[in-house]
Amino acid sequence: MSEIVARLRGALGARVHTDAATLASHRRDSWALAQLHDWLGRGAPTALAVVRPGTVEEVATTLRLCRAARVPVIPFGGGSGVCGAVEARPDAIVLSTRGLEGMVSLDARNLTASFRAGTMGGEAEQRVQKEGLTIGHWPQSVDVSTVGGWVATRAAGQFSTAYGAIEDLALALEVVLPDGSVLRTRETPRASAGPDLRQLFMGSEGTLGVVTEVTFSLRSLPESRRLAAFHFGSLDAGLEAIRRFMRAGWRPPVVRLYDALESQRQFAKQCPDGRSMLILVHEGPASAVAAELAGCAELYTEEGGVAADTSAVEHWLEHRNQVPGFRELNERGLVVDTIEVAATWDRVLPMYHAVVTSLRELPEVVLASAHSSHSYRSGTNLYFTFAARVDDKERMPEIYIECWRRAIRATLASGGGIAHHHGIGRVRSEFLVNEIGDTGVDVLRALKRSLDPDDLLNPGVLVPASDAVRA
Amino acid sequence: MSEIVARLRGALGARVHTDAATLASHRRDSWALAQLHDWLGRGAPTALAVVRPGTVEEVATTLRLCRAARVPVIPFGGGSGVCGAVEARPDAIVLSTRGLEGMVSLDARNLTASFRAGTMGGEAEQRVQKEGLTIGHWPQSVDVSTVGGWVATRAAGQFSTAYGAIEDLALALEVVLPDGSVLRTRETPRASAGPDLRQLFMGSEGTLGVVTEVTFSLRSLPESRRLAAFHFGSLDAGLEAIRRFMRAGWRPPVVRLYDALESQRQFAKQCPDGRSMLILVHEGPASAVAAELAGCAELYTEEGGVAADTSAVEHWLEHRNQVPGFRELNERGLVVDTIEVAATWDRVLPMYHAVVTSLRELPEVVLASAHSSHSYRSGTNLYFTFAARVDDKERMPEIYIECWRRAIRATLASGGGIAHHHGIGRVRSEFLVNEIGDTGVDVLRALKRSLDPDDLLNPGVLVPASDAVRA
Repeated sequence: MSEIVARLRGALGARVHTDAATLASHRRDSWALAQLHDWLGRGAPTALAVVRPGTVEEVATTLRLCRAARVPVIPFGGGSGVCGAVEARPDAIVLSTRGLEGMVSLDARNLTASFRAGTMGGEAEQRVQKEGLTIGHWPQSVDVSTVGGWVATRAAGQFSTAYGAIEDLALALEVVLPDGSVLRTRETPRASAGPDLRQLFMGSEGTLGVVTEVTFSLRSLPESRRLAAFHFGSLDAGLEAIRRFMRAGWRPPVVRLYDALESQRQFAKQCPDGRSMLILVHEGPASAVAAELAGCAELYTEEGGVAADTSAVEHWLEHRNQVPGFRELNERGLVVDTIEVAATWDRVLPMYHAVVTSLRELPEVVLASAHSSHSYRSGTNLYFTFAARVDDKERMPEIYIECWRRAIRATLASGGGIAHHHGIGRVRSEFLVNEIGDTGVDVLRALKRSLDPDDLLNPGVLVPASDAVRA
Repeated sequence: MSEIVARLRGALGARVHTDAATLASHRRDSWALAQLHDWLGRGAPTALAVVRPGTVEEVATTLRLCRAARVPVIPFGGGSGVCGAVEARPDAIVLSTRGLEGMVSLDARNLTASFRAGTMGGEAEQRVQKEGLTIGHWPQSVDVSTVGGWVATRAAGQFSTAYGAIEDLALALEVVLPDGSVLRTRETPRASAGPDLRQLFMGSEGTLGVVTEVTFSLRSLPESRRLAAFHFGSLDAGLEAIRRFMRAGWRPPVVRLYDALESQRQFAKQCPDGRSMLILVHEGPASAVAAELAGCAELYTEEGGVAADTSAVEHWLEHRNQVPGFRELNERGLVVDTIEVAATWDRVLPMYHAVVTSLRELPEVVLASAHSSHSYRSGTNLYFTFAARVDDKERMPEIYIECWRRAIRATLASGGGIAHHHGIGRVRSEFLVNEIGDTGVDVLRALKRSLDPDDLLNPGVLVPASDAVRA
């Protein structure tokens, strides 16, 4: 047994796991390439041990002992990340936050609820719904991700167009820093008291601290929910309709527009061939929802939209969190993944065409499509799906990487941002410098050095290595 | 002429000002205590020189030359700050951003507009209104503050309840760092690409970099604006009404509730004695505004509100940006200031009473009152006004400081946050540790050291000295 494992065991006893099953289930997150490597028989190695602290103090102890011994620590939440931010190594300790579970407090009057970071998202949402409240954060991974993971990856959920992303929902955080000290931000609705320190840890992907508790600013469950769906002649026409209703000041929580290919794939029954499907969920006070439904419908119609059966929306609501297993696809000779990017309105359509075209130029690519799922006054995201058929399975990883590179280069060339809500991890790390610039990378490195001078917290992630590739 | 002034003049020529008038007008911001010290004849000293760069490169040159010579630099925008974040010293250079003026670009389709940081807020707003658009940021100082100052102080405007504060409106920033390098964040509606680097500079009060350009995500001017006003029997009843309509999902941009004293002072004509006045501005698509107006009115009435003449709202809209001169008040033997704090709903009323009571216990205090002007799902702010009569003018500064300490201590004891939208500056610096905790201060110090290792950018502000007083 290595010295650090002995020390951790001395301090934390049964919180330290070294059995093969636990080590194996904490080797990686849900990154498609990591899964592919597993299938090819050269998956990520296991760590020295998995520590599952049950208290903030135990998290601090873990970080302090590892720091003293210069041992890397890899924070692990639900393991549902799709960018490879989590990958074990033989000289490191994996710190699972799943021992920090459950609700700490709920204040129905203040609309606040605090959860320990390892609480699964779906459980947190269910808990507050019992009181007629909602967190309103619905990533596709809601049932397999933790509330701490939402913060660490800077997540956005399916209802973000009205309710915002994690930075709009997390009122306060508790974070253990690499030196074991504990930061608790104040539970205040808003402050002008220096830089917002919460923001350092949102999207930090386990590199600057371990989130141990999240306090949400909740909402009341809406009085009314109404569904709407429209067909558009093209993706362009649908995007223009979204742009216009965002501009007018309407804010339906769910706004999803699919290109012709995805419309056909997702809504075979409801969507005529070649059309773009727009589905919407309107929520709020009944009279506000009625006004929004009518106001938006008028605008969609002006833009050439044709009212569609809302069974499409019901279908989506029912199936929205189902994710296909990559293993099964790999076995069928396919490499598949999704890539979410974002841009201001004028860049969205050129970016769509550039990415899809660049992907399709690769002979192996059999599918490249996209939808928009998070809109803003000044732009929207695009969520691409690609599939490539690769007969020689040894070539699958290189085709996978080539697809990503094509998509990200086309995004950058179109003036888009490379990551809307999944994060950087390992899959985007070579392009981070293109996203935030040389100075941005310098600032990120300075932050990292100042909080984690020995580069022990999730090393290799987020902060680019000096040989970073450029698009 | 000092060596640094000679060097700056060599590089920047006429951008370097050492005439007495320019030096005198750049000694301080609009902090009440600094104005009082002026009046008492012991005002802030002048700087070595005022540099007014006209380009980002000139800002970078200024910072590089000053860094090489170990000379402190004090960024200066509109000079309208009220917390003392700007105070010249004889060994420092004041860097005025006012040479960086005007609009860089406007994209009516993307709803974006970029302004150089020294552009006055009112001018920026007027410029976009010409296109039927609005920034939607209305601090009381809109005509005397710069758009860069809005970012540096983490400002919030009068329409924030619907439109958000500066962090919700600034889409991208350009910032010159203490080493002269230039950070430009990407103009993307949203990103999950590491920590949000914009947030480091929002509220940094000139200590981490110099904001040189701000890109806003604009709005269309609203189709409809409707006013409403209600009388409540007490501040408590009015707060409960606000809490309930925020919870229901309504979002009027302007929501202001005055205690009985302020209602009487602000709305002598409209408000019966002893009542609390609530004024509202509803904006948006006409049908949405109609629904909101009716929905809120029903709710206010349920809570005991009585519809009032909307001339109160018109009066406020007309006079909202008038600020009395402190000099005139000092001459009348009064020290006066405002203090904005914030808290979750359950803490607001106790905080109100604690602050007002603590202030009134001081024999010199002749007035202590408050209103709420920025509401959130989980709480609201309180904006206190105090006035003290001090016959011996030499005692005015100590009474001023004592009033602040009483208000902030009572806020902290009630669980409130010490600064809602004016910032920390010098007036709150002794209490920052109570706001963000020891670990928060450590993180702030680490940020400061990593970006400005020689402590040259606005030294003494924001990052607390080691002898910080505790409440």
